[in-house]
Amino acid sequence: MDHPADLQPAPAAIAHAPTVRQQLFEFVLQLADTSLVLGHRLSEWCGHGPVLEQDLAMANIALDLLGETRSLYQYAAQLEGQGRTEDDLAYLRPATAYRNPLLVEQPNGDFAHTVVRQFLFDNYHYHLLLALKEGPDAPLAGIAEKSVKEAAYHLKWSSEWIIRLGDGTAESRQRLDKALATLWRYAAELTTPTATETALQGLGLVPDYADLLPAMQAHAAHVLAEATVPAPQVVPFAQRGGKGGQHSEHLGYLLAELQYMQRAYPGLTW
Amino acid sequence: MDHPADLQPAPAAIAHAPTVRQQLFEFVLQLADTSLVLGHRLSEWCGHGPVLEQDLAMANIALDLLGETRSLYQYAAQLEGQGRTEDDLAYLRPATAYRNPLLVEQPNGDFAHTVVRQFLFDNYHYHLLLALKEGPDAPLAGIAEKSVKEAAYHLKWSSEWIIRLGDGTAESRQRLDKALATLWRYAAELTTPTATETALQGLGLVPDYADLLPAMQAHAAHVLAEATVPAPQVVPFAQRGGKGGQHSEHLGYLLAELQYMQRAYPGLTW
Repeated sequence: MDHPADLQPAPAAIAHAPTVRQQLFEFVLQLADTSLVLGHRLSEWCGHGPVLEQDLAMANIALDLLGETRSLYQYAAQLEGQGRTEDDLAYLRPATAYRNPLLVEQPNGDFAHTVVRQFLFDNYHYHLLLALKEGPDAPLAGIAEKSVKEAAYHLKWSSEWIIRLGDGTAESRQRLDKALATLWRYAAELTTPTATETALQGLGLVPDYADLLPAMQAHAAHVLAEATVPAPQVVPFAQRGGKGGQHSEHLGYLLAELQYMQRAYPGLTW
Repeated sequence: MDHPADLQPAPAAIAHAPTVRQQLFEFVLQLADTSLVLGHRLSEWCGHGPVLEQDLAMANIALDLLGETRSLYQYAAQLEGQGRTEDDLAYLRPATAYRNPLLVEQPNGDFAHTVVRQFLFDNYHYHLLLALKEGPDAPLAGIAEKSVKEAAYHLKWSSEWIIRLGDGTAESRQRLDKALATLWRYAAELTTPTATETALQGLGLVPDYADLLPAMQAHAAHVLAEATVPAPQVVPFAQRGGKGGQHSEHLGYLLAELQYMQRAYPGLTW
């Protein structure tokens, strides 16, 4: 990885008490799983995008997310300190051990569906990284510092597509509406803290999601207004569980593909 | 397996010369792979069928095919004589080693698509088994004798659905037409012999496909006429390669799912 020298793991970073270290491991793993799963989903578009430029855009976002994922798994492995590598964490855990929120494992659907999923994630991801890069844990701040620049681009891309689809043709609008109606219920899980996140928020190691929400909501309201789309009503049946390991049926199939090479040829390297 | 006593492997069956034994192994493996892959495809419908009765029908056909597959892999393992088991053959070979024709690995699509794929396969499968059960290789004849009764039912089921969809509503007809136009090109591979099949046909161990075609074509013509569907023109770009290990992109994904448990937990048994 090409972190600037001043962002190398600082001694303080590995001086966490064992309990905190375990909690931080779980949190970093959750972020890593999230970017890995979404990156894999986006990679499924490769060669199938609606136009070449957007095919490449999605492939590039996927690569950014996979790059972030690697840094996060490497740091998680270091926090765990039990000899597991980034590959072990990505390829050799079953679906129930994955900690990504349900949103990112949802299938691609049509392009509007992918754009909405991406927009909901990017809006959370960008604002989370913006706060994490100012946090006290140096390695995590370093990863966030690097990734937030990419996340800003991702959010720009998905926001512009929300506007274009919403304020486009009757068909693009109808597809956007359907995607919003389908996916909005998965948004709340992103900013609903788990017990681990609550504990780390108490220690100041993870930003309080309540502090992120105003900026997230303001951005979403702005984009939806530009798109001429009414903001979805609060969804009564918000779906959550993924951050606790309770996943939709989609994740098992995704991991079967993602992990196949390493499962079929254990220890395989490039 | 519950073969009648008089269909147990006869001494003659294992007295093939080594070359013939190898060819017979490849042929039996090809049949096993074919029924396994199609059985897996049909199992994907489980819980998603258009109505409960047809959901169960497809699950039952899938189970029949998997039952046939087990007998075939067991016999293949015996012919190979290298200590591999039915599970090794099903779960631990890569996609390029699979010998199923391309037709059966094609995705389910809508119900009409699945019905057309099934009809093309059943029409071949039934007539093949009818001939194999009279063949000189006792174990293969025994498996065919058992499976042909099931295959007769499968062909009845898919033929009736071809008629019902073709002579049904405008929408069912349009979907049937589309499925026929898409899948017809995969039919020819079923009855195009590989070098191995040609060799075994020369020895009288495998029926000559040219002898099966009149009955297959007569049945197809009868069903399509009942369905009020014109027989598809000969397709100039017949697709083949699966029986030689050259598969469409679909097979790798299918095997990733099918083999996941055994790959993730090597040696796992129920």
